[in-house]
Amino acid sequence: MKNFVFHNPTKLIFGKETINEIGDEIKKCGIKKVLLHYGGGSIKNNGVYEKVLKSLKENNIEWVEVSGVKPNPRLSKVYEGIEVAKKNNVEGILAVGGGSVIDSAKAIAGGFYYDGDIWDAYSGKYFIKKALPLFTVLTISATGSEMNGNSVITKEETKQKWATSSKELYPKVSIIDPTAQFSLPLKQTVNGAVDAISHVMEYYFDGTKDTEIQDQIAEGIIRTVIFSTEKLLKDPKNYEARANLAWSATLALNGLLRAGSNGGDWASHALEHSVSALFDIAHGEGLAIIFPAWLEYVKNEYIEKFDRFAKEIFNIDTGNSAIDADLGLRVLKEWYKRIGQPVSLKEIGATEKDIERLVENAVQSSPMGKLKKLEEEEIREIYYIAFNNM
Amino acid sequence: MKNFVFHNPTKLIFGKETINEIGDEIKKCGIKKVLLHYGGGSIKNNGVYEKVLKSLKENNIEWVEVSGVKPNPRLSKVYEGIEVAKKNNVEGILAVGGGSVIDSAKAIAGGFYYDGDIWDAYSGKYFIKKALPLFTVLTISATGSEMNGNSVITKEETKQKWATSSKELYPKVSIIDPTAQFSLPLKQTVNGAVDAISHVMEYYFDGTKDTEIQDQIAEGIIRTVIFSTEKLLKDPKNYEARANLAWSATLALNGLLRAGSNGGDWASHALEHSVSALFDIAHGEGLAIIFPAWLEYVKNEYIEKFDRFAKEIFNIDTGNSAIDADLGLRVLKEWYKRIGQPVSLKEIGATEKDIERLVENAVQSSPMGKLKKLEEEEIREIYYIAFNNM
Repeated sequence: MKNFVFHNPTKLIFGKETINEIGDEIKKCGIKKVLLHYGGGSIKNNGVYEKVLKSLKENNIEWVEVSGVKPNPRLSKVYEGIEVAKKNNVEGILAVGGGSVIDSAKAIAGGFYYDGDIWDAYSGKYFIKKALPLFTVLTISATGSEMNGNSVITKEETKQKWATSSKELYPKVSIIDPTAQFSLPLKQTVNGAVDAISHVMEYYFDGTKDTEIQDQIAEGIIRTVIFSTEKLLKDPKNYEARANLAWSATLALNGLLRAGSNGGDWASHALEHSVSALFDIAHGEGLAIIFPAWLEYVKNEYIEKFDRFAKEIFNIDTGNSAIDADLGLRVLKEWYKRIGQPVSLKEIGATEKDIERLVENAVQSSPMGKLKKLEEEEIREIYYIAFNNM
Repeated sequence: MKNFVFHNPTKLIFGKETINEIGDEIKKCGIKKVLLHYGGGSIKNNGVYEKVLKSLKENNIEWVEVSGVKPNPRLSKVYEGIEVAKKNNVEGILAVGGGSVIDSAKAIAGGFYYDGDIWDAYSGKYFIKKALPLFTVLTISATGSEMNGNSVITKEETKQKWATSSKELYPKVSIIDPTAQFSLPLKQTVNGAVDAISHVMEYYFDGTKDTEIQDQIAEGIIRTVIFSTEKLLKDPKNYEARANLAWSATLALNGLLRAGSNGGDWASHALEHSVSALFDIAHGEGLAIIFPAWLEYVKNEYIEKFDRFAKEIFNIDTGNSAIDADLGLRVLKEWYKRIGQPVSLKEIGATEKDIERLVENAVQSSPMGKLKKLEEEEIREIYYIAFNNM
């Protein structure tokens, strides 16, 4: 187990009828005016928007709105948010939505106090040292952004989908009401599940040894995500399944699994970011394609762990590590297919020519990976596996 | 799953050679003078005291000392600490030791700002609203006090061992260097393991339903504690086992398992507190006696969970819930015996007459329990089971 610091100051309020607490929480922080940031119309259709506004009004919190955040949130929307936030002298940001909205809000929060271009924080030229206080009401469990300091933004013109991280970006308060996810399209629920599983796997397969407690928790989260997703496919309004999936997705990336690890591998995420930057598919779909390809490529680097994964997640135990590892990957892929995810680049319309475009995009983030360091040639091979996957 | 708030602001620094960071962490909080609180001589023998002093000096932190904290920490020592803290105008408290030292430091931290008798916080007459900032260097993994707001203190004259809890009592920074536990007597390591398992079981068996993710994590922690303890019995300086046990014990009572639960049952803890108040045995020993007795008494309240416990922890699965539950309890008790714990009140020298003294003491905290509400008669029955246990 590696040395670590665990420090997660976010106050997480979870459960039924909790959205109405948001105004009071903002008020308790001494904030009187916020930028209200959200995506399209879904929060207006499912009643979340109305509940948030009611709570803000009851607590005399003023707000200005910047909406229209899209999946794979864009830098241009961030610039718009920063401008509106500055012009209106807001004292905090309230993000209402999924990971894209929260990540966009984080970029605005950091950009508010930065004189340069906030993209600098994503390209590695600037480290966010100060940010507006952030509050969130989560409507899609997936990215874990509601309880961490990470943000991923896409710069449209250069098709760069890059990440930043700072202690200043942890939300002050996040509210998760699982009932707000009852009306989610099943596709989005499934994307969230794949995202959460992928976060767990980034730590699980990062090459650290002797992390029994983290491995046990990681396996518990993956089993719960699978178990809950299966239930939701049959009954999208099953509260217990929604709640278990939601809390699992938050725990998957709130620092708990990073503790004692090598920090996570994150090559699959970097490779996926190029996919969703170029093809504008959902992050969860991209991960269903890329992660199994990466696993296939690196499995011999740490076959015991792949063997353990197969046994603990899918009860596969033939006694032969290599066979178990293979079967484990195959069953994972089969599960992804069964819940409606693509598992190859072909399925999202990519042609063989696109592989070079993906390599060119991804190589900007190379070298990447902890379990195995990837450079251009390795990256190309993984995209080829992902292209031909089935 | 029940609604919950998760908010744990403690910064946890974990790993080898981390004790030397304590002075810098205190300085970063703007604190220049602390009360240094510890127990007997062990921290002077294992080098921890020296490392702490060096770090304080390097960061120009002044300190005054109050030492001599005993297991089952006493109110009289708390009073002494409050007096010294006030007289010397300290700005914070640094607890170096195990749960007893940290709990005592928490009482002092709360008492510093309270004009009345700080025992009021333990007897339910006062809720701690303000406390000195607390820092800890942990030397025994057991109580989880390094990452929560709980404190248990014993009032000697009345033999009351009671608890309090407040957000203000969370340590600002806690340091866990597992190597500091290499020289622990095996008995203390084992007591810590039983304490950690008991904390997990308080939540696991509190009667909440549909908490799959919490159950998975709970089971993972218990399995890891058992696995690590087995290793340490053979090799007390096994770093990985120390580290896994240490982090597991912290996670067992840092709010993670409380999330979504009924808040924990806590009857076993209340019943144990009377045992260690009257017999002055270690809390871990008392729990090894009381918890199996409580489990025996309440198992039919939620037989499915006891069945699950037997299967997930000890691979017991005969297909008959009642038999599995029984076997699970028996194997747990056998494991406690094998690691050198007492499992009956007789073994610690209690006579049948003592049962009434225990009932009289415990009944002050009744009614207790969530899975089953216990009053005098139920309390007596459980002590009888614990008396005759074998």
